[in-house]
Amino acid sequence: MAKDFYGELQLGILGGGQLGRMLIQEAINFNVNIHILDPDKNAPCRNLCNRFVHGALDDFDTVYAFGKGLDMVTIEIEKVNVDALEKLEEEGVTVYPQSRIIRLIQDKGLQKQFFKQNNIPTAPFQLISNKENLANTAIPLPYIQKLRKDGYDGRGVKKIISEADIETAFEAPSLIEQWIDFEKELAVIVSRNDDGDVATFPCVEMEFNPEANLVEFLISPSSLPFEIQQRAELLAKKIAEDLQIVGLLAVELFLTKDGQLLVNELAPRPHNSGHQSIEGNFTSQFAQHLRAIFNLPPGDTAARSNAVMVNLLGEAGHEGLARYEGIEEILALEGVYLHLYGKKFTKPFRKMGHVCVVNEDREMAINTARKVQQTIKVIT
Amino acid sequence: MAKDFYGELQLGILGGGQLGRMLIQEAINFNVNIHILDPDKNAPCRNLCNRFVHGALDDFDTVYAFGKGLDMVTIEIEKVNVDALEKLEEEGVTVYPQSRIIRLIQDKGLQKQFFKQNNIPTAPFQLISNKENLANTAIPLPYIQKLRKDGYDGRGVKKIISEADIETAFEAPSLIEQWIDFEKELAVIVSRNDDGDVATFPCVEMEFNPEANLVEFLISPSSLPFEIQQRAELLAKKIAEDLQIVGLLAVELFLTKDGQLLVNELAPRPHNSGHQSIEGNFTSQFAQHLRAIFNLPPGDTAARSNAVMVNLLGEAGHEGLARYEGIEEILALEGVYLHLYGKKFTKPFRKMGHVCVVNEDREMAINTARKVQQTIKVIT
Repeated sequence: MAKDFYGELQLGILGGGQLGRMLIQEAINFNVNIHILDPDKNAPCRNLCNRFVHGALDDFDTVYAFGKGLDMVTIEIEKVNVDALEKLEEEGVTVYPQSRIIRLIQDKGLQKQFFKQNNIPTAPFQLISNKENLANTAIPLPYIQKLRKDGYDGRGVKKIISEADIETAFEAPSLIEQWIDFEKELAVIVSRNDDGDVATFPCVEMEFNPEANLVEFLISPSSLPFEIQQRAELLAKKIAEDLQIVGLLAVELFLTKDGQLLVNELAPRPHNSGHQSIEGNFTSQFAQHLRAIFNLPPGDTAARSNAVMVNLLGEAGHEGLARYEGIEEILALEGVYLHLYGKKFTKPFRKMGHVCVVNEDREMAINTARKVQQTIKVIT
Repeated sequence: MAKDFYGELQLGILGGGQLGRMLIQEAINFNVNIHILDPDKNAPCRNLCNRFVHGALDDFDTVYAFGKGLDMVTIEIEKVNVDALEKLEEEGVTVYPQSRIIRLIQDKGLQKQFFKQNNIPTAPFQLISNKENLANTAIPLPYIQKLRKDGYDGRGVKKIISEADIETAFEAPSLIEQWIDFEKELAVIVSRNDDGDVATFPCVEMEFNPEANLVEFLISPSSLPFEIQQRAELLAKKIAEDLQIVGLLAVELFLTKDGQLLVNELAPRPHNSGHQSIEGNFTSQFAQHLRAIFNLPPGDTAARSNAVMVNLLGEAGHEGLARYEGIEEILALEGVYLHLYGKKFTKPFRKMGHVCVVNEDREMAINTARKVQQTIKVIT
């Protein structure tokens, strides 16, 4: 379809946050018309599109009215009204990723069942309909309780260490998952277009901020043995093919201490674990998502150099109009790329931007990223 | 000033064409608010800014009203009302490049006199007030006649070979310049910030489309001997310092057959000869312009790999709503990056986009660029 559409294609994006913003930065090169729906009237994409609609992503009528008349709808967040997307699909709007995939991934219980059905290695789990059932589970303590729906960026996840913790557990449909004492957390981003072309980005390693439970530090490419990276990339390809997804899929994995790879979670869209690809790889995850949904051949995913990505989080104790400290200092360092997300207000641990550091030398890139982390601050 | 301004800085750009568009793609990372003034209501930037003003760039009142109340004004085209910029400067709006530099560069006669006064090597020239004076000049035939004002993209330039050509010469203030039988046409882009930090991009080589008189093919970095490249870069630095410019300056040069470097023309803004820097260099010319005007340290200008840039021009014989042919094919080639400019209408030789090809191997990059040139077409 791509060939005849440039200049005329009306592309809707559900969500107008930083992922939408970086997607727009790439979509500009493809000359398509962008429509954004977001519940925040100050959303980062508000001034970067042909049409900005202020409205709820989970409301059927809002999403349906937004998408009706567009050629294509994609997402930058999973928490959207899937019934509306299904109706739009029925009525001829192309929805990528497909609504059935968003529905599956929205529910962590269905996601886990999908892993099981397709022999995709994942941590042992059990579905839980109410809190009482937590007293008597097949998974031994300690375990992780995850809400089936609406968890995001570390919300909706609880560690249950002892029986006393069950008191404060979530009272909602959830799943519990064996506590994995992992060696490393990895991610592979894979893309698939409608012709079935599948391409993976090189495997990356993540470091989390334990307090905020957010990716804070990401290293690309991984320095793990080739065999492990290859296994991770093959797994990501298998999942993309099992799902028959069109678009980008981020696959988060645990590498266990005994060398197993377990799939943790999926995101059917550009993902925080792929931000380094803008400067670190020949094709960025945002360009790759567009190539996939426009049914264009995938771009070269190879790393151009070592890249380390640091999330720029709102400083603890600061809530209000955002100010940035240390920008001049970090831009004087070698190989530093700043991405501010255009968010008006900061709050503790809010993702306000990211910095990517590239360097021929992996240790140098990591050292610079540490310096960046110590220098730049989002305050009020 | 930069430090306290992110999120609040109101930046105006005179001109909303492809240069403004690519500047916005970078400015998004700096979280500034963008205001655009352009005479075309379908300008490429129209949907990518906080405020789009439809109006004439050469009208005093329009430019003054546009700039009043902004923190900073920059340009993506020189043909703007400088008197209005001067008044804005007087009233406290930061104008980068400075109005006096735009005024100088707008007039090719003043530009040439500036070269002479500052011992900057340039082709011998003579100012001409009216056509009659062409019959009796100090510069022998053949020579080039250039209008002093409003020449752009090959317009306003005539080659005068014989006395018979004087008949059809321009009847307006102009200059004539000795015909230089050059070996190569080179360009160096240099930036300077308010602190006086100056940085040059590596020298690039250009190939022109002789029919359209537009840069069509650009190779980065140059493969000329180091000594010549260094001389070109030192010349660019000297000009930036002589001008005391804040912002980006593109310096176009001739390398003569006897090894001299002669400065041809200046452009005080991002330039077609720097488009390859987006993928081909560690810092793009657009990021560098923003770093310069925000008084941030210059980014690393080194080449990341060989890069060849091809302008995507409107096909001869086609005028009307633009369509693109061959996009799928070129995106299947290695190292190909597409930039469409979002122009609704094409006409013969109109700049509709560009393609950048990167490759470790210079010849491979050139071969792919040739394939791109043969494959992609802008038609109606």
